Amino acid sequence: MARESSSVQKDDTADEFLKEAFKIVMEEAVQKGTDRNRKVCEWMEPEELKKSLDLDLRSEGESQDVLLGYCKDIIRMSVHTGHPRFFNQLFSGLDRHALTGRIITEALNTSQYTYEVAPVFVLMEEEVLKTMRSFVGWKTGDGLFCPGGSISNMYAMNIARFKSFPNCKEKGLHALPRLVLFASQESHYSVKKGAAFLGIGMDNVILVETNDRADSVTWNPHKLLGAGLQCSAFLLKDTTQLLQRCHAANAAYLFQTDKFYNVNYDTGDKSIQCGRRVDCLKLWLMWKALGSQGLERRVDRVLEHTRYLAEQMRRREGFRLIMEPEFVNLCFWYVPPSLRNQETSPDFWTRLGKVAPVIKERMMKKGSMMVGYQHHGNRVNFFRQIVVNPQVTAEDLDFFLDEIERLGEDL
Amino acid sequence: MARESSSVQKDDTADEFLKEAFKIVMEEAVQKGTDRNRKVCEWMEPEELKKSLDLDLRSEGESQDVLLGYCKDIIRMSVHTGHPRFFNQLFSGLDRHALTGRIITEALNTSQYTYEVAPVFVLMEEEVLKTMRSFVGWKTGDGLFCPGGSISNMYAMNIARFKSFPNCKEKGLHALPRLVLFASQESHYSVKKGAAFLGIGMDNVILVETNDRADSVTWNPHKLLGAGLQCSAFLLKDTTQLLQRCHAANAAYLFQTDKFYNVNYDTGDKSIQCGRRVDCLKLWLMWKALGSQGLERRVDRVLEHTRYLAEQMRRREGFRLIMEPEFVNLCFWYVPPSLRNQETSPDFWTRLGKVAPVIKERMMKKGSMMVGYQHHGNRVNFFRQIVVNPQVTAEDLDFFLDEIERLGEDL
Ligand SMILES: Cc1ncc(COP(=O)(O)O)c(C=O)c1O
Ligand SMILES: Cc1ncc(COP(=O)(O)O)c(C=O)c1O
Repeated sequence: MARESSSVQKDDTADEFLKEAFKIVMEEAVQKGTDRNRKVCEWMEPEELKKSLDLDLRSEGESQDVLLGYCKDIIRMSVHTGHPRFFNQLFSGLDRHALTGRIITEALNTSQYTYEVAPVFVLMEEEVLKTMRSFVGWKTGDGLFCPGGSISNMYAMNIARFKSFPNCKEKGLHALPRLVLFASQESHYSVKKGAAFLGIGMDNVILVETNDRADSVTWNPHKLLGAGLQCSAFLLKDTTQLLQRCHAANAAYLFQTDKFYNVNYDTGDKSIQCGRRVDCLKLWLMWKALGSQGLERRVDRVLEHTRYLAEQMRRREGFRLIMEPEFVNLCFWYVPPSLRNQETSPDFWTRLGKVAPVIKERMMKKGSMMVGYQHHGNRVNFFRQIVVNPQVTAEDLDFFLDEIERLGEDL
Repeated sequence: MARESSSVQKDDTADEFLKEAFKIVMEEAVQKGTDRNRKVCEWMEPEELKKSLDLDLRSEGESQDVLLGYCKDIIRMSVHTGHPRFFNQLFSGLDRHALTGRIITEALNTSQYTYEVAPVFVLMEEEVLKTMRSFVGWKTGDGLFCPGGSISNMYAMNIARFKSFPNCKEKGLHALPRLVLFASQESHYSVKKGAAFLGIGMDNVILVETNDRADSVTWNPHKLLGAGLQCSAFLLKDTTQLLQRCHAANAAYLFQTDKFYNVNYDTGDKSIQCGRRVDCLKLWLMWKALGSQGLERRVDRVLEHTRYLAEQMRRREGFRLIMEPEFVNLCFWYVPPSLRNQETSPDFWTRLGKVAPVIKERMMKKGSMMVGYQHHGNRVNFFRQIVVNPQVTAEDLDFFLDEIERLGEDL
């Protein structure tokens, strides 16, 4: 049999490639990608972008140089979510310690299911979850990192169902009375997606005004804390092994009961997944770097920024807050000069609703910044500014306001 | 307001940290972690490991030096799944191109939901899925990268349910007749987990002998192809937008219909997630590097290795194949000297069932290699050897056999 083959990478060449690629990542993504003198994004229409990228997967492999060129192009054509003028999502910024944790995670490439293959990360996940629960105010409890907040919310729904109707696991909903699910009027759409996925049905989600008696919490450090996608903890108060009982399937090939160590450390059967990424390290390392105090200061800082921005908006003609800032969300209309003092005109709202999409298009084509917009209930399109990046300065926020004015002055 | 604060990272220091940490990753995880002269794992009991790691999250942050020390320790204490003697899971190996793709993914930190924030990756995902479908034999179809094969399987189940009963999405299972689900007798346990999660109920999973009329496929390149966790494609033949129709919730803040580009490129509403990791780049870059031919050679190579190993086992006393190799799975008992030719003795099987756990304990404490074991049906514990790492050589397999003999000779 062949002892060597061309499909085996020569380690040295491959390692050189990796080092060269890392240099590109440092320059293009980490440094240029967060540089306010550079663009946030390089807009291209899908068809045009397709042509400029050689995406086609072929029979033959490419040379290392060509591959490094792809890496550069991919980074350049991508949106720089770590840029201080990216206000488009609930995540932004590029924490270097978290990124280090993510790179180590990728290099170690293990699954969180058993102590056998993830000794450090089983213990680390336990510690991080315990600390997170203590911030929620719980001394005991359980939890798990999940692939995103939506799926964490589905865990919560499944656990709640199991707690009331344990036989749902074996018998299914068919054996139960019709279930309904109460959620806050302002709950995230993942609750409805979850109701559909879990077989409960979207019509059986009853929206109510408040809903604050939580005995579980979904906490997404990939958002405000900037740990990086994905980092979502599902935390629960329960101490009766609900998670394990609700999800366990006792796979014989993973969760052997005759292992030589304490198999309570094999936590994978709490999950609906089999292989499960290590999502705790990036948060852990960032937390170690900043301490809880440092994280707290970051949150204080972005809240201060949100207040600053609201205050500046009140001073500028044309900006109209929809409501006081909600946490780090600032929702506002920009009323361009031609629409000012026209509120009684019959098509005012229709015309105002067209402003945000045009300004958004212009900022993206220019690459100067990114911010989201949406309509909500009977409110026409408004901007939703979110400050989460700790690198954002007051100057960035002044720029934000000036830029909206510049992009909208002729509308 | 404060224009600077201690919670803002000084970019230069932070970048220096990142570079230093990357050097550690290269040395400790990439080079030493795949070096056959070094251990696969550094076994420690959970309590002992807890003491040796300073996992506690405190108020104050730590210095850069302390943090770099953590990085080193974490890597050293972790299992080296890229090591050529790690045969423990369906994943192993450390492809440098895939790792590069993963690092770029982490540095860009975007979500796959809209073209707006993931222009390159929306197009890339489409291209990769199209190519994967063509290998399955479908000229058209749909698909999505999901957080792991288990969740991909749940997608398949939910889509199948929706296809037959579209009103399940709104009305839930309560409005439907009792549903049952047919799956192969040898199907993965995620089918049962999924049936529980989706409200169908585990008892309503009917196991049948074969089940090969697939109109959807879960393909996990994080396993045999070594793309890295997580990389799981859910592929379907459907051309009627089933995925979109089944999962869409039309969130106004993400999927605005009045965007300035073709919103068919906003594919996020096909998913049950909201934020969704970019899982296509690592596979794409590795595929570009090797070409389909290179990937094919890798698969051929590991199949050849599996055959080689089976052949060697037949030649050695003490090794007993449970069946012919199934793809890259090789299931076998090791019968230690004291148990040979004892098959008629009443406690033979009980004693044989205790062999694998002891050998496993010994190899892990020694750190020489890792391989899984399990029982199945009425078969007592056997080893399940899996060759997926393209770096594995025939010498590694000879070592594997010798080592089992060494570790089991006194049993
Ligand atoms: C309140 C709330 N819940 C849940 C989610 C979903 O989180 P993910 O995007 O991680 O699925 C979001 C996302 O923005 C959210 O804002
Ligand atoms: C046949 C099969 N299906 C599904 C899965 C689950 O995949 P994942 O671990 O990505 O959830 C596995 C995992 O080993 C598997 O072998």
